[in-house]
This record gives sequence, structure tokens and C-alpha cells, in this order.
Amino acid sequence: MRTHYCGQINTEHLDQTVTLCGWVHRRRDHGGVIFLDLRDREGLVQIVCDPDSPETFRTAESLRNEYVVRVTGTVRRRPAGTENPNLPTGEIEVLCRELEVLNAAAPLPFQLDETNLSETVRLTHRVIDLRRPAMQANLLLRYRTARAFRRFLDAHGFVDIETPMLTRSTPEGARDYLVPSRVHPGHFYALPQSPQLFKQMLMVSGFDRYYQITKCFRDEDLRADRQPEFTQVDIETSFMTEAQITALAEAMIREVFAEALGVRLPDPFPRLSYAEAMARFGSDKPDLRVKLELTDVTDAVRDVAFKVFSGPANSGGLVMALRIPGGAQLTRGEIDEYTKFVGIYGAKGLAYIKVNDASRPDETGLQSPIVKNLHEQALRAILERTGAQSGDLIFFGADKPKVVYDALGALRTKIGHEKGFLTGADWAPVWITDFPMFEYDEEEKRWTALHHPFTSPKDEDLERLESDPGSVRAKAYDLALNGWEIGGGSVRIHREEVQRRVFAVLGIGEEEARAKFGFLLDALKYGAPPHGGLAFGLDRIVAMMARAESIRDVIAFPKTQRAQCLLTHAPSPVDEKQLRELHIRLRIEPEKPAKNA
Amino acid sequence: MRTHYCGQINTEHLDQTVTLCGWVHRRRDHGGVIFLDLRDREGLVQIVCDPDSPETFRTAESLRNEYVVRVTGTVRRRPAGTENPNLPTGEIEVLCRELEVLNAAAPLPFQLDETNLSETVRLTHRVIDLRRPAMQANLLLRYRTARAFRRFLDAHGFVDIETPMLTRSTPEGARDYLVPSRVHPGHFYALPQSPQLFKQMLMVSGFDRYYQITKCFRDEDLRADRQPEFTQVDIETSFMTEAQITALAEAMIREVFAEALGVRLPDPFPRLSYAEAMARFGSDKPDLRVKLELTDVTDAVRDVAFKVFSGPANSGGLVMALRIPGGAQLTRGEIDEYTKFVGIYGAKGLAYIKVNDASRPDETGLQSPIVKNLHEQALRAILERTGAQSGDLIFFGADKPKVVYDALGALRTKIGHEKGFLTGADWAPVWITDFPMFEYDEEEKRWTALHHPFTSPKDEDLERLESDPGSVRAKAYDLALNGWEIGGGSVRIHREEVQRRVFAVLGIGEEEARAKFGFLLDALKYGAPPHGGLAFGLDRIVAMMARAESIRDVIAFPKTQRAQCLLTHAPSPVDEKQLRELHIRLRIEPEKPAKNA
Repeated sequence: MRTHYCGQINTEHLDQTVTLCGWVHRRRDHGGVIFLDLRDREGLVQIVCDPDSPETFRTAESLRNEYVVRVTGTVRRRPAGTENPNLPTGEIEVLCRELEVLNAAAPLPFQLDETNLSETVRLTHRVIDLRRPAMQANLLLRYRTARAFRRFLDAHGFVDIETPMLTRSTPEGARDYLVPSRVHPGHFYALPQSPQLFKQMLMVSGFDRYYQITKCFRDEDLRADRQPEFTQVDIETSFMTEAQITALAEAMIREVFAEALGVRLPDPFPRLSYAEAMARFGSDKPDLRVKLELTDVTDAVRDVAFKVFSGPANSGGLVMALRIPGGAQLTRGEIDEYTKFVGIYGAKGLAYIKVNDASRPDETGLQSPIVKNLHEQALRAILERTGAQSGDLIFFGADKPKVVYDALGALRTKIGHEKGFLTGADWAPVWITDFPMFEYDEEEKRWTALHHPFTSPKDEDLERLESDPGSVRAKAYDLALNGWEIGGGSVRIHREEVQRRVFAVLGIGEEEARAKFGFLLDALKYGAPPHGGLAFGLDRIVAMMARAESIRDVIAFPKTQRAQCLLTHAPSPVDEKQLRELHIRLRIEPEKPAKNA
Repeated sequence: MRTHYCGQINTEHLDQTVTLCGWVHRRRDHGGVIFLDLRDREGLVQIVCDPDSPETFRTAESLRNEYVVRVTGTVRRRPAGTENPNLPTGEIEVLCRELEVLNAAAPLPFQLDETNLSETVRLTHRVIDLRRPAMQANLLLRYRTARAFRRFLDAHGFVDIETPMLTRSTPEGARDYLVPSRVHPGHFYALPQSPQLFKQMLMVSGFDRYYQITKCFRDEDLRADRQPEFTQVDIETSFMTEAQITALAEAMIREVFAEALGVRLPDPFPRLSYAEAMARFGSDKPDLRVKLELTDVTDAVRDVAFKVFSGPANSGGLVMALRIPGGAQLTRGEIDEYTKFVGIYGAKGLAYIKVNDASRPDETGLQSPIVKNLHEQALRAILERTGAQSGDLIFFGADKPKVVYDALGALRTKIGHEKGFLTGADWAPVWITDFPMFEYDEEEKRWTALHHPFTSPKDEDLERLESDPGSVRAKAYDLALNGWEIGGGSVRIHREEVQRRVFAVLGIGEEEARAKFGFLLDALKYGAPPHGGLAFGLDRIVAMMARAESIRDVIAFPKTQRAQCLLTHAPSPVDEKQLRELHIRLRIEPEKPAKNA
């Protein structure tokens, strides 16, 4: 029906006859001539309809915004002075000879260039919202990104293998979405939270290198920027070490950013152990664009009179400092705001010291209500370790480790961006490695897996698996970018005996293990190769690339925070007959009567 | 961990030191030397362990089948006379210098080369089953096929866009899989039967060319070779005509077969109208490898005494003939078997005439109990139209059209393959076009859509939409290959007014249309471009390419005919707590108590 896309016409096509299809983006009548901006996926082009072609002109007069038309005409240079340098097609225009209306359009619920539309309006009219050039660009970027992942993985011998969507509910991890079985009364499938066990089984089957870009599902409350269904770039490989897997994944991410976005990421990515990341940045996904760092001063304040410090310092807690260069300039109001901010993370306050004169570690050089309760030795240590200079300010966190890390880690990022303590890099990837294998759950009084129970302990820590689980590190790795975790994985356990020992530490008994993971234990029994892998969150990566505020802006048809599709009105009530076939009944009446009865 | 894949070592690597990882496929001790066939994804290679390396030799002695090992050694030519021409690596062997056991393996539940394994055993131990070279080849073929589809579509400007898995239940079509909502009590998502409406909406949004290789779901009884979840290559485009869409899809299928299988399909594919396909082959997915054709003789037998023919011929039924060249040789037993066979399709019998002498259209030249009840003019017409020669046999079907088409269509294919009436082509694709828009449902006394209600009627038939729906043809097309439908689609309705008229013919009222498809009607209202598309069944295409007996052989983790995963035991009972969270309860007790309580 057409010869070119609108957005691709340029001076190479001068004097050629072209046929274009698209939407009337804007119509202007000027000096007896009608100008149309015709829009398609690739961009805009200016169409000129003059009264010399009376029939065409009459049709042009009838056009409204968003009419779908087909235009045949000749490409010509725009008159001097009327070029539009902001448009790739801005040097040319198409003199219309034939004009056909392919479809009319009712006035849109909103204009495509309106800003500040509510998300409710945008998602309700998603079909229109997706016409906006920014949304078109986002989804095309998503496509290029996924394609770049595939190209890299294809080129490196990875095989795309589909794993089931209707699978078994496992009580580990997040809440499953369930699917009642019609054929097996009282039985349910679960939608996969990830293809974890299937990809491990594919390694045992000998497929060697697997990948899949696939939907995963978690029925969690969507307080953060999450979706019930999300897309994962899922990878597993046999016969590769932790270092080899991360090197390959790193090369992949570099190539994806280069190909999809034209961005060069550092080579190599920096690496931090979990312990170092927490100590320096208070986070296992630190934003390395921010230059500020934390300093541990716990041991220096064990014997100070200030109980807020000495308390945690003597009972397994932490006291950490965050130096803000030039921070003595911060206003009372700013400090109050930061104090409120760290409260979100459970900090009960935000102690600080203004360093008026760094050479005098006492009340004469330091300004703070707490200085009088810290002896000189402590103050000297604080100044020395933080490297504080005159004019700086030091914030403190003192609490259980988690609170200190979360509060000061977040404060570091916030102040870093607000006050410009930045490296200047647009993209700061970092590998976090050497994660602890287990976390102790204080409430349930048991060890839980920090990653998942199939993660391999480090070989050298294996001997302490039972005696000192807390000290065992895992062959696990996360990739953080600009403060977000964008991917992660691990080398898996490939020996049945090690898997049983890990289950034992986690309090998963023999019988329970067999009931839940019997198929995995079987798989390990019959000749499992050493294997490992990782998964990347496509939605998050593309949202970051697109500088989008939410992953919803890089998903064609996302759900709201209440897990609804406002376009199609899903979820919805269903027929009583459908429920009967599935051997279930409602505990309650649905909110609205079923429309499709 | 390795330098090469096992299956890739050849004479180019002579005298090189290689490190290989893989599974011990077979171990033979012969003349004081141990031979290992080492297997990985890419194939087998022979490893030689001789007693000159005592430590390696002792390790080799401990190996059992399916142990996972790492071997370092030197590639050398096999001694003359011991080459294996059946193996790509058959000219060489690797003299082992280092041998490391990466993992042991318990004896397998079955040997990889066992044949006649029950499907239950294979699916229960799918991880082992997938190690079999045939299954490895099938899944690699599936991967290459999907990749070839992507490459073609990428190269032609199609954009991969993900559509939701958690969507709205629509009462049209097959039975939905439902997913109860936790956040919205009494409300349910449905898993998509296809992304049909979403891809149409993407066209209205202006994405121009869309594709997706995606899972679709139908909760149907799996009598045929079907799966609850299946994979579709889903395509939609704007601004293309029916002829352009089918030409593009045809080029794609040709390229996919060439790239993934090295097979050249005909160019162009033949095309048959639905009417012609039914008349000549009794099927809208005819197997064109079979040379036999049907002949309509209805009008020639209207006034014969034989009521089995004249009855249907005078009451809207059909009488059709199938000539079998040389068929006079068929035995009584064979004819009885065919009679039973057509009974499956509802035929009440299988009349036939043996043509002993084609020049005598009477009881002297023709041998059959029915000849005496057919007058000479009818017999002459039958012989003429079928082109029968002496020595042939003619089968007849006489019944309602559907029964005649189904019975004789299936008989044509069966005899064609059994008796070798074949063109010799391995692959016979054919487009079927000009489908009727509507079918009359005799039970429900209403018109239903043959494809789906969004299919566009042919422009020239639009005026008969209300007055003669049965005569209206659709802009719909199916691609059949060797007697299977492998894909199909249509140009869609892009004008809201036409969509409303089609809904009206289908008895879908204004209010119902709004409740069910309001979002689509809205989309059509705001400037929908002319658009259309199609979908291909990936499972079926790959199964045909692999000459697999079932699509289960080209799916990594398929379900049984009872929709169960024997490997993971899905579906399974779930916690009462999980059900309570979803606001549902069981109507019955589950078959087994929940293990994961």
C-alpha cells in the first residue's frame, strides 16, 4: 500500500513519487494551502495539499487529527527558510497528488502531546497512549534490547528452550499465581516465579547452554515499581566457573547497551564483595555514580558516654559515619529533612557533627550536641577515618546493622544526587560477589537461603556448612547498575550430597525435600554437570535505558498497582459455570455481577 | 573448563591438546585399554585411556555410564581399520592424559538407546529422556526454527512486543484457563488463548508490524495431539492487503524451512479457494502429496433408483466419487477396512463400483451391487467425470456435505499413502483462501464466525452481509502443509461500522459487544489502520520437520493427555491457606492430601 515509511523520507528521495500511509498528526491551513504532518512508526513528514488538485484539496479539508490516510505525491525540497532542523524529514515535503481516507477518527480522549496525564487515563486509553512518540520509542527500545540479548546469546552457543507456564506450586519464595485444574479436581497449576528448576534440569539433560526471555509471575503486593508478570532474560550454562559466567554476562550487558542504546559501559565492570559493598556503601546494589562512602567507626565509640553510639557498638550493632564534603553549609531544614528520610529505614535519629576546624577534635573545632559525650580519642578516630576536612559535616547511623546500612546507604545516594557528589558517569555497573549463603531469620529462629536453596557454597567454606552457616559464602553474584539490581545468579549445587546438606541447614527434612524437590534430587543423582547461570530483569533494564519513571512505561499493556488492566478490565468476574467446571466456588460474592453470563 | 565440544573434534585438531567435558556414553575395556565414548550436546568422541598413565587409567576403571568427566588429552588419528564412518569424529580419538570425575551417576532408570519406552516412563524421567540424541536434535531443531522465524521477521521490520499473560476471560472460543485474583475477591484473570485483540490494538497504536513467539492456552480435552499450553508465532501488520500478507508469510515459511532444515519449499505455494479445496479434496487442509481427487456426481444421480444416492442428492446433500486407479485389485478385506474407516467420520457405508471395462457403463462392464439401481446415463457421467479406466475402482460418499467431505477426504489421504498415489514431494504446502465468513450452527440456530468475529468480509461481499450471510466470503487464509493446518489468519475489520454489522449477524447485541469488546470498538473508533495478520503453530511445524510422532517430542517438558506434568507432578493440591487468600474454596476434596502444607 505504500512505498516508504513517513519518517524515512529525506533529500535522497527528491523528485521521486512516494506513497505513504499514516495518521494525520496535525493539520494547518496556511495561505490557501493545507499542510499535514503525517505520522507513522518511523516519524513525521510534511504533506502539502494545494488547490491545484481540487479533489485532493477537498479531501484534505475534511481531515481531522488521527484520520488514517494514504498519500501519493512527489518529494520536493522545502522552500528556503521553512526547513525544520528538529525533524529528520525537515528538509523536504511531499506535494500531494492523491489522498485517500482509509479511516476516520473520533476526537481522542486526550491529545498526544498533553503532559501531566494521570496514569489512570493513560492506562484506560492505552491504545491512544501508545501512539505517543515517547511510548513508541520506549517499546522499540525494548525490542532492540531483547533482540540484542538474543543476538549475543545465539552467537555464544546458547539455545532458547521454552519451559512450562503451567507448572507446580512450590511453597518457597513469593506467593504463586494458581490455576485450577478442570481435569484434576482440587489440583492446581502455578505460574512460574522463574524457570529455575527447569533450567537446572536442562543442564542435567546436557543442553549445555540455555536461555529464554520469558514471563515470570509473583502474586505480591505491588508497593514498589513491580508488576504481577515480568520478563526475565534467563540463562544457564554447564562447565563454567563463577568467574567465567560473570565475564560472559558482563560482555553481554556491554554489547546490549552498545547495540540497543549506543552506550559504552566500562570494561571491565568493577567488582565488590558483598562485605565491601555493605561497608563502603551500605548496600548490595550501590549506586557507584555517587562518590560518597560510609566509614565504620563502631570500635572507636565502644566506650563513649553517648549511649546512642556505645549501645549498638557493644551489642552487635554498628556505628557508621557518612562524611559530606562542605556539608557544614547544610541548613537546619535540610538536616531535618534527612532525619525524616532515614526514619523511613527505621533509624531513630540522625546524629551529625559539623567540622568547623578539622585540626581541633573537640568542642572548639566541632559543632554538635553529641560532641561533649564523645571523648577526644573517638573524635580523632572519626575525623581520621572519614578524612574529614574543615567545612565538612559527618552524619552517623547507630543501630542494628540492617538499619544502619539501609538508612545511611539511602542517605548517601540521596545526598549524592541532590548535592552533586557524582562521578559524572551516566552508567555505573558493579558486580557484587561473595554473598553470604544464609541469613538468620530472627522471627522463625532458623537459617534461610539468601539467594535460593540451590546455590552452591564456596568450595573453601564447605567444611563450615554445618558448624558455622553464617560464615559460609555462596557462589552467587548480582549485577547492580546505578543503584538497582538488574540481574543476578549463582553457580548451583551439582552434587546431590551437598544439596542434602544445604537442605539440612535450612531445616528441610529428607521427606519434605523429596516431596517438594524430588525431581531435582533425582536429576542431581543421574550425572549432573557443574552448572550455573543468572537472570536479568528486562523491564527494569529497559526502563533505566529509557530513563522512564516506571517499568509501566516500557510495558505495552501493564497492570496498575492494584494489579488491574484498565484497558480490558482484567481481572473480571466469570460465569458460575466456569467455576463449577474448575471444582471451585467463591468464598464471597464478587464486587460486581458477572457481565458475561 | 574445556576447549572444545566433543562432537566438534576432527582431523583439523590432530596433535592438539584439547580439554573436553561430558558424559560417559559408553565404556569398553579392550586389550588392556579403556575406550570411552564421551558425549556432549554436539556429539560423541572416542577417548583412549591406556595403562601408561596409571592414575588416569585407575580413574577410568572407576567410570560408569553417565558419569560426568573432564578429559585433557591429545587428538590423534585412529589406527587404520578402526575408523567409524558413521560418526563425524570417527577418524580421530583423544589419548587421555588427565581425567577428572566431575560427578558420579546412579544407574539410569533406562538406557538412552532403549526403544519402545512407554511415554509414561519417558515423561516421568524427562531429564534422562532429553539426553537421548533424538530429543537433543528435536529441541535444537525447534530452537533453529524459532530463530529463523525471528530473523526473517526482524529483517522485515516486525517488532517483537510482549502482550499480557494475565488477561481478561472472553466467553468466545475455547475454554479459558482462569487465575483467581487475590486483590480483587471473586475476580479472575484468564490466560490468553491468543494475543488476537492485543495485536490488533497494537496496530491501532501505530506499531505497524508486530510479532511475538508466545505461549497460548486452551483448557480443552486433549483427545488429539494437543497441549494445554502451546506456542504460536503471532504476526500482525498494517497497510497490507491479503495478497501481500500471504506472500510475506509464504516467503517466511520458505526461509524458515531452508534455514532450519535445509529444505527448499515450492515457490510460489499453490493456492486453492476453500470451495475448490473441498470439492477436489474434501478438506480445507488437503494433503497435496496425494494425487487422488474427489469428483462431485450429485447432479448425475438425482433421479436414480438407488435411494442412498438420490436421497442426499435431492435434499441438500452431496454424492461424491473417489477414483482409485487400478483399484479393482483391492481385496474384499481392504474394502471392508475402508468401510469401517469412513465410519469414524459418520459415513453409514462405502458404496463402490469396480470398473472392469470402462467402455461398458452397465452391469456387464461394472461390478457392484449398486450398479443395477443406477441408470446408464448416471453411470456414464460417473465414468466420464472421474476419468475412470478399466481396472479402476470408484468409491462413493453420499450424505450431508460435512460427512461426505470428511469421510472421502480422509479416505483419499489414507489410500493415497497406503497405495502410493503420491506426487513424490516431501513437502506440499498450500494456501486455502476465500473461506466463508459464517457457518450456520444448526443446533443453536444462529450464524457463527468461521474464523473469529474480527475477520473482515471481502469488500465485494459486504452488501450481502445481512441479506445472505452464508454467501459472504472472508479475507481469511490458512496455510496447510501435508494435510495439517500449520497457520492461518485474516485481514481484520478496521471500520467500527463493519464490526458492528458483523456482531449483529452473529447475534451479539450492542450492549453485549460493549461489555465484551468495548476496548476493541473504542480502538476502531480512534483511527484504526487497515490491518491483518496470522499465526503459525510452532509445535506442529517443528514436529513435522522432525518427523516426530507427537508434538510432545518437540516440547521440553510437555503435559500428558490428562494435562499432567509427570516430572514435577503438576497440577498438585495446594495449601488451604493459599485458597483462602484467593477467596475460593474447593467443591470437592482433592484426590490426595496436600503434601506441601
